[in-house]
Amino acid sequence: MTLAASPLAPAGFPDLPPVAGVKLATAAAGIRKNNRADLLVAELAPGTSVAGTLTRSLCPAAPVEWCRRVLDQGDRGARALVCNSGNANAFTGKAGEVSTELTALAVASGLEVPVDSVLVASTGLIGEPMPDEKITAAVPPLLDNLQPSGAHGWKDAAEAIRTTDTFAKGSFAPVNGTDATIVGIAKGSGMIAPDMATMLGFLFTDLAVAPDILQDSLTAAVNRSFNRITVDSDTSTNDTVLLFATGSGSTDPITSTSDPRLDDFQAALNNVTLDLAQQIIRDGEGATKFVAVKVTGAVSEDSAAVIAKSIADSPLVKTALAAGDANWGRVVMAVGKAGQPANRDRLAIWIGPEQVAESGSVLDGYRESVATEHLAQHEVEIMVDVGVGEHQATVWTCDLTHGYIEINAGYRT
Amino acid sequence: MTLAASPLAPAGFPDLPPVAGVKLATAAAGIRKNNRADLLVAELAPGTSVAGTLTRSLCPAAPVEWCRRVLDQGDRGARALVCNSGNANAFTGKAGEVSTELTALAVASGLEVPVDSVLVASTGLIGEPMPDEKITAAVPPLLDNLQPSGAHGWKDAAEAIRTTDTFAKGSFAPVNGTDATIVGIAKGSGMIAPDMATMLGFLFTDLAVAPDILQDSLTAAVNRSFNRITVDSDTSTNDTVLLFATGSGSTDPITSTSDPRLDDFQAALNNVTLDLAQQIIRDGEGATKFVAVKVTGAVSEDSAAVIAKSIADSPLVKTALAAGDANWGRVVMAVGKAGQPANRDRLAIWIGPEQVAESGSVLDGYRESVATEHLAQHEVEIMVDVGVGEHQATVWTCDLTHGYIEINAGYRT
Repeated sequence: MTLAASPLAPAGFPDLPPVAGVKLATAAAGIRKNNRADLLVAELAPGTSVAGTLTRSLCPAAPVEWCRRVLDQGDRGARALVCNSGNANAFTGKAGEVSTELTALAVASGLEVPVDSVLVASTGLIGEPMPDEKITAAVPPLLDNLQPSGAHGWKDAAEAIRTTDTFAKGSFAPVNGTDATIVGIAKGSGMIAPDMATMLGFLFTDLAVAPDILQDSLTAAVNRSFNRITVDSDTSTNDTVLLFATGSGSTDPITSTSDPRLDDFQAALNNVTLDLAQQIIRDGEGATKFVAVKVTGAVSEDSAAVIAKSIADSPLVKTALAAGDANWGRVVMAVGKAGQPANRDRLAIWIGPEQVAESGSVLDGYRESVATEHLAQHEVEIMVDVGVGEHQATVWTCDLTHGYIEINAGYRT
Repeated sequence: MTLAASPLAPAGFPDLPPVAGVKLATAAAGIRKNNRADLLVAELAPGTSVAGTLTRSLCPAAPVEWCRRVLDQGDRGARALVCNSGNANAFTGKAGEVSTELTALAVASGLEVPVDSVLVASTGLIGEPMPDEKITAAVPPLLDNLQPSGAHGWKDAAEAIRTTDTFAKGSFAPVNGTDATIVGIAKGSGMIAPDMATMLGFLFTDLAVAPDILQDSLTAAVNRSFNRITVDSDTSTNDTVLLFATGSGSTDPITSTSDPRLDDFQAALNNVTLDLAQQIIRDGEGATKFVAVKVTGAVSEDSAAVIAKSIADSPLVKTALAAGDANWGRVVMAVGKAGQPANRDRLAIWIGPEQVAESGSVLDGYRESVATEHLAQHEVEIMVDVGVGEHQATVWTCDLTHGYIEINAGYRT
């Protein structure tokens, strides 16, 4: 099945700058059909530190468990990332663990680096045996093609990790006050409801950042970006976000949480992760609308996020959005089922610029025509004040259309 | 929009027996379009006891709050039920509370019974002002038409409470060892993910049962029937199940939990509630398959039910079922996201008669053709053993099809 690009896709892949200390190469190893690129290796300079967030699924894929072990070693550093698409190596038992180890070993021996400095990620079908012999055969010639990162290499890398994505996803931000930059690529389109993790996202900076600080920065960024999106409420077995800091740039290392540059680094990281997360929503399976759901007046930010997700995950809200129907009663339903503190009789609702309800019932003079006009756009916003506190959160989602059914009734066949 | 009957619909409405002590009448009050019946009153004999389970939504409709107050009075008894379709009287603020009270008052004064002995239920659109003047105008002539319950009256009653349902739902069971019977009617098709409650379900028995025993029996029955179904993971603002025991039959009252007839009563009640719950799934919006998801080997029955619901709620599992695709990898994903104890490396999966996986990976000799053949039927079963305990639960659901999108992108307009 070939999918047309999402109507919400950006105009094109961004022109991403090189990141010092990162070399890239891709290959068609034959895991995906039609000889499409399906293997990516990123070589990382000595001294690169790494941070990661991984799926909380209790049935995680073998490469997720591999990454967890590598990350748990602390600050031993990372020297390479290898990622295949076409096969998730999930629910593949002992054989899947061996496949992951063989993949890491092939890269480690080719680059002459420790095997536990190689991060591994996989995405694609769940439960199919992993054809690791195709990877180990493809790795040596691929390593010969490693090139310093740059616009062309980033685009190829983002293409190689796609599955049902209709466009490649990349983003970058300079770190203000330094010469450093952050570049990220990501994939994801369905099975998107990350929980303390995401689909695949790989971030690279030429800053040097101490591993514990790097991890805290990544966790903070992910919590307000990848963890605030949902396409279909389904959480993947393979969600992985990795952030590599090569230290190969000209900027001095960040080794203390009191370093004044840390705020700028966090801001740049937040920008890149949020842009990538929103690109995943723009490529949500079957999506025709990009939807921001903002909840205010909650008892905590977490509570606001749970209520916003309840709205964003509701099939009835999402089908109404697909139809451009200002069916705010379904928003009330979704607030009610969220199980979080909310005062029904103080609830207020906005659809785009139009206030629909206040104090728990429809507003006098509510103009449904204005709400409907807003919902006819590709970018829409729903806001709910739940009337019990001062905290807020925004979750991004897409509508639920015939396209979603079409794609997911046909993915395997 | 007129919907064709679900392909999973029963052959016809069952021939329901009269229940002594219950009189019925319906009318077209003009709340629904096209002059369809939209108002039901059931008059109950003096001495009728009542039990109920209501939605846990934090944004409940006004009639739900009314019922909660009536039920909380304890054993004062019930003399009437009034239910309208076409308007849910949810998120209607103070005006909605007044509408509910006016509705109860109209019935109470016509029947000359206490207002707090009248149970009220509403179903239909959320957030629209309730046209209570149509109800209060329709009640007096309707009360003149009250007739002892019987096959014709039950069918009319079940028709009057329908909204997007494509068929009327009724069931009954005799209580073994007594002359008594239990009759139930229900409605529901979308916004179905009851949590300690359900869509509308009304149950009647001519037994006399003490209210506290009646409530315990109802709670037990609902927990394994209405609370084990899901169409779309969306929980209604109006879910209400009421069980009335008129005591008008010839059988002596049940006043003690050691009464030997209680087991037979519970068994009959379980049969009726499970039959009605499964009829709701057979009428799931857009459904083409009736799906039983059984989870075994869990640490508790509740844990098994949570895992089964995670599978039954997954849009990716449900779209695969719509396509008849034996995509068991999505089942693994849904087990993993449930957040309940499960041992990935001891997981076993069956699709109908065919075992797909054992010990955490695909079974040698798994025949996908047999699984696919099973999934081509209208009635399918998925079974998962999660390998950590001795407990099990079954949840019933339906597939997710273009029909669901079609119905819910058009319901209001």
